[in-house]
Amino acid sequence: MEVFLNAEDKIPKYIQLYEQLKEKIISHDLVAGEKLPSIRYLAQELNLSKHTIDASYQQLIAEGYIKSVPRSGLYVLPIEEFSISKENGNTTAICSTDINNTIDFHYGSIDLEKFPLSTWGKCIKLAMEEELAILQYGVPQGDFLLRGEIRKYVAQSRGITCSEKQIFICNGTQQAVSFIVQLLNLMKQPVYFENPGYNEVRNILEKWQCDILPVPIESDGINLNTIYNGQAKVAYVTPSHQFPLGMILPIQKRLDLLKWAKNQNTYIIEDDYNSEFRYTGKPIPSLKSLDKLDKVIYLGTFSKSLLPAVRCCYMILPDSLIENAQKMIHQQTQNCSPILQRAIAIFMRDGYFQKHVRRMKTTYQKKQQTLVQAIKEQFKDEVEIIGQQGGLHILLKFKHADVDQLIERAKIAGVKIYSPKKHWIDSDEMSYLMLGFGGLPNEEILKGIMIIGSCFDKMNS
Amino acid sequence: MEVFLNAEDKIPKYIQLYEQLKEKIISHDLVAGEKLPSIRYLAQELNLSKHTIDASYQQLIAEGYIKSVPRSGLYVLPIEEFSISKENGNTTAICSTDINNTIDFHYGSIDLEKFPLSTWGKCIKLAMEEELAILQYGVPQGDFLLRGEIRKYVAQSRGITCSEKQIFICNGTQQAVSFIVQLLNLMKQPVYFENPGYNEVRNILEKWQCDILPVPIESDGINLNTIYNGQAKVAYVTPSHQFPLGMILPIQKRLDLLKWAKNQNTYIIEDDYNSEFRYTGKPIPSLKSLDKLDKVIYLGTFSKSLLPAVRCCYMILPDSLIENAQKMIHQQTQNCSPILQRAIAIFMRDGYFQKHVRRMKTTYQKKQQTLVQAIKEQFKDEVEIIGQQGGLHILLKFKHADVDQLIERAKIAGVKIYSPKKHWIDSDEMSYLMLGFGGLPNEEILKGIMIIGSCFDKMNS
Repeated sequence: MEVFLNAEDKIPKYIQLYEQLKEKIISHDLVAGEKLPSIRYLAQELNLSKHTIDASYQQLIAEGYIKSVPRSGLYVLPIEEFSISKENGNTTAICSTDINNTIDFHYGSIDLEKFPLSTWGKCIKLAMEEELAILQYGVPQGDFLLRGEIRKYVAQSRGITCSEKQIFICNGTQQAVSFIVQLLNLMKQPVYFENPGYNEVRNILEKWQCDILPVPIESDGINLNTIYNGQAKVAYVTPSHQFPLGMILPIQKRLDLLKWAKNQNTYIIEDDYNSEFRYTGKPIPSLKSLDKLDKVIYLGTFSKSLLPAVRCCYMILPDSLIENAQKMIHQQTQNCSPILQRAIAIFMRDGYFQKHVRRMKTTYQKKQQTLVQAIKEQFKDEVEIIGQQGGLHILLKFKHADVDQLIERAKIAGVKIYSPKKHWIDSDEMSYLMLGFGGLPNEEILKGIMIIGSCFDKMNS
Repeated sequence: MEVFLNAEDKIPKYIQLYEQLKEKIISHDLVAGEKLPSIRYLAQELNLSKHTIDASYQQLIAEGYIKSVPRSGLYVLPIEEFSISKENGNTTAICSTDINNTIDFHYGSIDLEKFPLSTWGKCIKLAMEEELAILQYGVPQGDFLLRGEIRKYVAQSRGITCSEKQIFICNGTQQAVSFIVQLLNLMKQPVYFENPGYNEVRNILEKWQCDILPVPIESDGINLNTIYNGQAKVAYVTPSHQFPLGMILPIQKRLDLLKWAKNQNTYIIEDDYNSEFRYTGKPIPSLKSLDKLDKVIYLGTFSKSLLPAVRCCYMILPDSLIENAQKMIHQQTQNCSPILQRAIAIFMRDGYFQKHVRRMKTTYQKKQQTLVQAIKEQFKDEVEIIGQQGGLHILLKFKHADVDQLIERAKIAGVKIYSPKKHWIDSDEMSYLMLGFGGLPNEEILKGIMIIGSCFDKMNS
C-alpha cells in the first residue's frame, strides 16, 4: 500500500495515515470489501509502531469507513451502504449498530474454529521434508500418494472401486469440468444441466459454448423424460444432494439414468460435492458405485471436507477415457500445488481426515439444527425450509414476500443473505433465499435470523 | 497400493511383497515412471517394518525393475527401456551402469539444494496463524497483500508502475492465457504467436480454437513485417528472453511493437517468464514498463524464481481491461491456494524473496557456465550454443548429427535430453537439443555432457 508519511510534519503520524487511508477509500482507490493489511503487517511495512497503525484504524472504524470482522480482519465499507444506513435513520436502527459486524450467510464458507490447524501445518511441513521433489511442478495426473489415499477413501465412504490410474487431481470443479469438456469434445455440443443447478459449472460450460439443455428438477430430482427425449452428449448431475435444492435421486432413477447413458453411449458427470455431510437417513451410494457399465465420471472435492484453500478436487474416470485423458493431461501443468496434494495425502494417511470429517459432520448438523429451529420460531409458516438432509446450506421459500427487498433491508441491517436466482436458467420471479451456515458460529446464526425476521416484520407492517 | 500379504505363508513377507510388486510392474499395473510409495509410508500402510519394505525394494532395484533417484524416491523403470539396454550389451556399456541414476536435462526443474525450506515453512505457518480467513476460498482477484508485494517488486525489478487493482493472481501461465482469451474474446480469432514459441501456451490457444498466426523469429527476435501485414487481434511475445531461443527484443522493435498495438487498437501479451535470471549485460526493461499507451498485458510467474509447486503467477492488466476482468473473475474461483499466496506475500515482505532470487541468480549462472564450458570441451565446433544470456536452459544446434538418434542413445545411457521440436510450428527437420540445467547439480551436468559426448562420438565413429 502506497502511503507517504512525513516525519518532519507536526501532524501526528497516525493522523497522517488516517487521512491518507480515508482519501483512498473516498476516491475508491481502496474499494468496498477490500481487506486492509493487518496492524502487524502495516507496522512492519511502514516502520511504525503497532500502536500508531491501530490508532489510525480505530479512527476509521469510528467514522464508519472500515469495519472489523472478528478473527478475520479489517475491511473497507461500501460508501453507498454507509450513507444509506445513515439516511434511513430510525427505520433501520437495528442495522446501523451492527454494520461493523456483518453476519454473512454466504454459501461456501466452512467452519474454521474446529479446524486442526497445527496438525495440518505439521502435515505441510512433513510433506516438504519427506520429499524435496514435491517442490517442483509435480505429476500432471496428481500426486501418486494422494491418489492412493483417495482410492481408499472413496472405496470406504462412497462404495467406489477404482484404481489410482482412474484418479485425476485438479484444482477445482470448474477446472475438472473444463477438462471434461475438452476430453469429450463437448464444445458447441448439447449438455444436460439441472435446472436449477450449480451455476459455477454452467458458467464454464457456457464459456466452452456448450448448448445447455435444462433438465427440470422435480420433487425427486431430475425429470428423466426430458433426458429421454433430447439428444445431449452428456449429463451433469448432483444425484446425492441436488444443488441447490438438496434432494436425493431415488435408486430407480439412478439406475434409469445409467441405462440411458449405456443406450445412448454417452457419459454422466456426477458431482458429489459434499457427500460427507448427510444428517438424516442412510448414506447414499454414489452413482459411480452403481456404474457397472463404466459410464460415470465422478467429481469429488476437498473444499468442504477439508479446506477450500487447498484448491484440490479429483475426477474418477471410466477406464475407457483414461488413455485420452492421460494424453491430454500431459499437455497441461498440474495446477493443484504438489505441496498441498502431498500434505492432504499425509493428513489422510495418518487418520486425521476421517476424524475431521466425522467431527465436522456433528458440528454442521448442530449448526443446521440451530438455524432451522430459529427460522421456525421466527417465520412460523411464512416459509418452507428446503434441503435439510445434508450440506452446508438450506433454501427458504417465502409464501408472501419480496425477497429482493428483504435482501436489501437485511444488508442495511448488517446481515448478508443471497438469492439463489443465478442457479436457475431464465428465472423471472424468485421467492427463494439461500442461507449458507458453514462458516457462522451458532450465536451469529441466531442473531442473523433475528435480524432478518425483524426486517421481514417491518416489510409486512 | 493393493498388496495382500499372507501372514501364515512360510514365504518371507519381503519376498511376497517383492513378488507382488514385480507382478504389478510386468502387468503394467504400475507403469513406467510411476513413483513408488516411500519406505516409511508403505511400512505404515502395510503394518510391516521399514526393513521388510526396504528389502523388497532393494531386490527390485537389483533386478532392474525400479530405480532410486537420490533425494526424490523410487520409480518404476520402463520394461522396454530395460530390455533395450540389456540387448545392446557392450555398445552401450556406459549406459547400463547408469540406468539407476538418470540425469535429466528436462527444462522446468529448479535447484532445490539452496532453497530456504525452513524459512518457507515458517512463512506458510505464519500465513495460517496471522489470518484464519485465508483457509477459505480467497479473493477471486488474489490475496491483497500478495498483490501489494508484487506491485513493489515489479516496480523495483521490472520498472513497472501499477496499482494493486491491475494485478490478478492465477495459478499458471496456461490459466492466465485462458483467462485472457476469454477477456478479449479471442475464440476463433487470429493471434500472433512466436515461431518457435512456448508450446504450452500454444496448446491453450489451440484449445480455445484461436487461429494461430506464426511470427518468425530472426536473430533479433520477432519479425515485425509479419505482424504489420497480418490482422491478428493480439500478439503473444517473450521480449526479454525469447522462448526457447533466448534473444532479447531490441528497444526499437519494442517501441515499434507498442506503436502497432496502438494503431491497431489491440493488445500485446508479454510473457516475462524468467526475467529474474539474466547473466550478461544490463537488466532489460520490460515491455510493460515502456507501455505508456496501456496496451500490454504482463505475465509474471513464481515458478522459476520461487517454486513451481506454489502454482502461482500474475497478470498485470491495462486499466482499460480491469472492469471486465473483475466481472469475469467473480464468476470464477481463485485457483491459486490462498494459503500459498499469503505465504509468498510474507516471504516477500520479510525480504527473503529478493535475497533468494539474488542467490539463485549466482547459482544458476555458475551452473550455466559449467554446462557451457563442458559442451565446448566435449563438442568443440560441432555445435552452436544458443541462449547464454539468461534463463534455466540453453539450446544446442548441431552441425552434423541425427539429434533424434542422439536422444535415443543418451536415454539408453541414462541421460534424458530433449528436442525442442514441439515449440516449432510445423517443423520437419530439427537439429536442436534443449538442455534445462536448473535442477541438476554441477557434477551431474558434467557427467551428463560427458555421456552425451560419448554417445555422439559413437554415432560418428
